[in-house]
Amino acid sequence: MSKKTFGPQPLLFPMPAVLVGVTIEGKANFMTAAWCGITAYKPPSLMIGIHKERYTLQGIKPNGAFSVNVASVEQVKMVDYCGIYSGTKKDKSRVFKIFHGTLKEAPLIEECPVNLECQVKHIVDMESHIVVLGKIMETHVSESCLAEGKADTKKIDPLIFSFPDGQYWRMGEPIGRAFQLGKEK
Amino acid sequence: MSKKTFGPQPLLFPMPAVLVGVTIEGKANFMTAAWCGITAYKPPSLMIGIHKERYTLQGIKPNGAFSVNVASVEQVKMVDYCGIYSGTKKDKSRVFKIFHGTLKEAPLIEECPVNLECQVKHIVDMESHIVVLGKIMETHVSESCLAEGKADTKKIDPLIFSFPDGQYWRMGEPIGRAFQLGKEK
Repeated sequence: MSKKTFGPQPLLFPMPAVLVGVTIEGKANFMTAAWCGITAYKPPSLMIGIHKERYTLQGIKPNGAFSVNVASVEQVKMVDYCGIYSGTKKDKSRVFKIFHGTLKEAPLIEECPVNLECQVKHIVDMESHIVVLGKIMETHVSESCLAEGKADTKKIDPLIFSFPDGQYWRMGEPIGRAFQLGKEK
Repeated sequence: MSKKTFGPQPLLFPMPAVLVGVTIEGKANFMTAAWCGITAYKPPSLMIGIHKERYTLQGIKPNGAFSVNVASVEQVKMVDYCGIYSGTKKDKSRVFKIFHGTLKEAPLIEECPVNLECQVKHIVDMESHIVVLGKIMETHVSESCLAEGKADTKKIDPLIFSFPDGQYWRMGEPIGRAFQLGKEK
């Protein structure tokens, strides 16, 4: 098998397409992010990479709070809308039904199946982007996306983003269970 | 729409299931990771969250180098195997065909469609996990996963992991193009 080299490229598969919520001058604002991942399990934490010129940073730094809203396939147009237009140009505070949990400055999107309230723990400069590491303080899941009382991946129907083709995808079929398939080797 | 709260949970969808490669005492070792995400675009960088007790940290800290190998559905059993068994118990240096690029201590997996060579830039303590932020130094893509000379998401057929159900999934169908769908709103 031969390989082709491309120089440094951010080629990770799959990527999420989440909506990051902040409060700026008393108003909710939402930004689409694919540079995002869980960082730790205990306590649960995550990171988002935010371009230094993004309006969202004006909400994250002073408040120390933000939300990460997992989008489902159903929300694809709104996700893309929030990725195209900056909060400096469009008022995104009325695009979604908003609710609040424990962190008053982390607006949550009712339409999104999963909502994470996050408190900023560390900020790391990675040149083009600021990496925000946040502790997950509370998790909300839509009742319609539960099965036997737990978050159900299939019902959540999460939106997937791929780079560099700039495509949104839906999830396919389950293949098997983790911590089992490897024992059959 | 009503919501159920779960306390702090690492509920991000989708997650990747990548193989992190390091060199420990002259030998290649691979660990499965779902806590992983791109952090910045220029220069491209990424992060992985590694449990503090993981053997892999013994390779990352002294060498300052590691690889992230994107797995395809085809590799699911080996991915799960590398997630179940620690390098302290199993010699994983012969599980894959290994090749090397520019970073001599970042072993790359030939069978994986995409291989990223990474140089450690920052290490952040996030309690249960160490978050390693790495600059992507080189990208390799299998020739069989290219279309018109570029990495092709469908051919890569990336493996997806979901938590907390501990399930592997394949990707489904494309939904639409980013930076276009949102304009139709």
